[in-house]
Amino acid sequence: MKILHTADWHIGRKLNGFDLLEEQRHAFKQVVDIAQQEQVDAIVIAGDLYDRSVPATEAVEAFNQMMIALNLDKKIPVLAISGNHDSSTRLETGGPWFEHTQFHLHTSLEQAFEPIEMQDTQFFLLPYFEPFQARRYFHDESIKSLEEAMEKIVRKMKKKFDSNKNQVLVAHFFAAGSQKSESETLLTVGGLEAVPVTLMEDFDYVALGHLHNKNALRHEKIKYSGTLLKYSLSEWKQEKGVRIVEINAHKVTQAFQKITPLKEVMCIEETFQTLMSPDFYKNICCENYIGISLKDQQIIPNVMAQLRSIYPNIIHLERAQGREVTKQKQRDIKELKSLDPAALFRHYFKDTTGETLTELQEKVMIEALLESQKKIGSEG
Amino acid sequence: MKILHTADWHIGRKLNGFDLLEEQRHAFKQVVDIAQQEQVDAIVIAGDLYDRSVPATEAVEAFNQMMIALNLDKKIPVLAISGNHDSSTRLETGGPWFEHTQFHLHTSLEQAFEPIEMQDTQFFLLPYFEPFQARRYFHDESIKSLEEAMEKIVRKMKKKFDSNKNQVLVAHFFAAGSQKSESETLLTVGGLEAVPVTLMEDFDYVALGHLHNKNALRHEKIKYSGTLLKYSLSEWKQEKGVRIVEINAHKVTQAFQKITPLKEVMCIEETFQTLMSPDFYKNICCENYIGISLKDQQIIPNVMAQLRSIYPNIIHLERAQGREVTKQKQRDIKELKSLDPAALFRHYFKDTTGETLTELQEKVMIEALLESQKKIGSEG
Repeated sequence: MKILHTADWHIGRKLNGFDLLEEQRHAFKQVVDIAQQEQVDAIVIAGDLYDRSVPATEAVEAFNQMMIALNLDKKIPVLAISGNHDSSTRLETGGPWFEHTQFHLHTSLEQAFEPIEMQDTQFFLLPYFEPFQARRYFHDESIKSLEEAMEKIVRKMKKKFDSNKNQVLVAHFFAAGSQKSESETLLTVGGLEAVPVTLMEDFDYVALGHLHNKNALRHEKIKYSGTLLKYSLSEWKQEKGVRIVEINAHKVTQAFQKITPLKEVMCIEETFQTLMSPDFYKNICCENYIGISLKDQQIIPNVMAQLRSIYPNIIHLERAQGREVTKQKQRDIKELKSLDPAALFRHYFKDTTGETLTELQEKVMIEALLESQKKIGSEG
Repeated sequence: MKILHTADWHIGRKLNGFDLLEEQRHAFKQVVDIAQQEQVDAIVIAGDLYDRSVPATEAVEAFNQMMIALNLDKKIPVLAISGNHDSSTRLETGGPWFEHTQFHLHTSLEQAFEPIEMQDTQFFLLPYFEPFQARRYFHDESIKSLEEAMEKIVRKMKKKFDSNKNQVLVAHFFAAGSQKSESETLLTVGGLEAVPVTLMEDFDYVALGHLHNKNALRHEKIKYSGTLLKYSLSEWKQEKGVRIVEINAHKVTQAFQKITPLKEVMCIEETFQTLMSPDFYKNICCENYIGISLKDQQIIPNVMAQLRSIYPNIIHLERAQGREVTKQKQRDIKELKSLDPAALFRHYFKDTTGETLTELQEKVMIEALLESQKKIGSEG
């Protein structure tokens, strides 16, 4: 049994305001190509197909087209579950019809206990669930945590294990590491409830979704595939792609296949002057989604507009060492508070342009100030 | 070919705030029963399956269950189109898979020209569309109205006509009557664009959706089925149900089969006193969705709360002859304006209860007024 393991497609997601549908379609095409080159028996999608429970029409259309291409045109079997970003009810529309062409989409807990059997392998598709759903399903009020729920779930699944076949679990949750140290850290991260990997070690392979980093867990047969694309600046150094997993007589071999985005996500830490210099940016793909960390501390007028003229897809802008506030500056601030409007403006102009007002500028400023004071007077 | 013709299910619709999902499930069960008793070859749903383009989760779930029951459990072929209330994109999710079990759901104009052939009949499923979509489809900027679009659409459909078969059109729009007088009226009603029935007379039967009244059009073979339920008070006298249509060698016979709601929608015009009298309401199913037209003209305190204690599902309340404003009343209003607060309250009390204040009531009122005036004084 050879599968392609992917997860967390988040169709419809935006990256700091930038629409990613084109990126997502482009990544999807590579998934199909890899599946065909590798001649996999099925594609496993471990949850979060959509980014939102009520996805936009465009996202619905894009995902629909992807599944038609994958399952109906290319005739590749699909094994998928809903994730915490999906609305299980909305996603399950059509589910019973999909099965006719080996598109298995499980969205409710009870479906997890009917394994999908393909050749020599049993697939247990466990959608994202909350402990209260397990309490209800097992009629057991003592189930409080995800861990307690998973104990019962795995025990029930194991009753369906066919010893002549391989067993694969597909799930969408936060799994806690095999190494003690890692586990302890992960178990408390963000207050998330975690499922210990020890609970899942009777499966030959566990295809996980939820965490975007493919290396979030280090276990030889319990793995996250990670996302197809970088969905936040924090993921910029992560390698993105899919896993190709082969399971033969309970033995697993796996490899990672990269996905190339149309535009990379990257971080640059530099001074404004360097960033604006052709010698610097001629070596950079300026169309990338870029997070900029400015080394400068002083005020730079229209900084975003100036940077965007070179780097149109800036997704984040910050100061590496914050803004300059020296003791001199603090004294300045005290002084500034005592200035009259005209003096204040002269100071601001000098601060941002490095120059003093010309005679004409001085005249225009005074007229404008007088005009505005007249208005304040008449309103008061 | 024997079909059940229905339309405008509007799953998820509310009736003046009352949830109708239970009613809709109940009506749906009757549709299935009728289809089975009549041994129809297919069920035709002529648009507006949902009430909204983004239906609530509960509505999605209910409709999904209905289609599973109808098409997968009872194995009844379904021929359906999207209406103006549906989002064609959201509705089409799963469409290509549905066809495997003869659930044909057309949501885009181009699908209308590929007839679904069942036994001796060709079904042309034309979803709701706007003239701009016809302009784009035919690359013809001259198409301005629905009528112009339909001329081209029908011409193109007729090229696919198989003379050995019957032709059925399923569509969702406003069709204008066969009788000249009716047509003239209808063509201008509400500024809606109408399609003249003359354009559709080459079909053996036209199954329409859009208008909720099954008798909205009088034509022997071009018919609205109407809704399964009364969806507004204005429909309260309409008979609701489905059409059973038999087409044999271009001959059509049809009959109407009623659907019974859990609660009726009804209007009552009566006095408050009569409505509240057990002799009157013992003969009425008080749980019905009731629109009340009160014959009384005088003020009735807490009228809605009092009426709801007997009729819990009031969907509308109005005064049959408005409120009483006689010349005497007009004079009264002038006088009222000159009264001090205490006198004004005495007047109001008399007006609503028919009684004068007791000594104790008078005392309490005066105290309350003094208290409130003190507050006004301290705030002013």
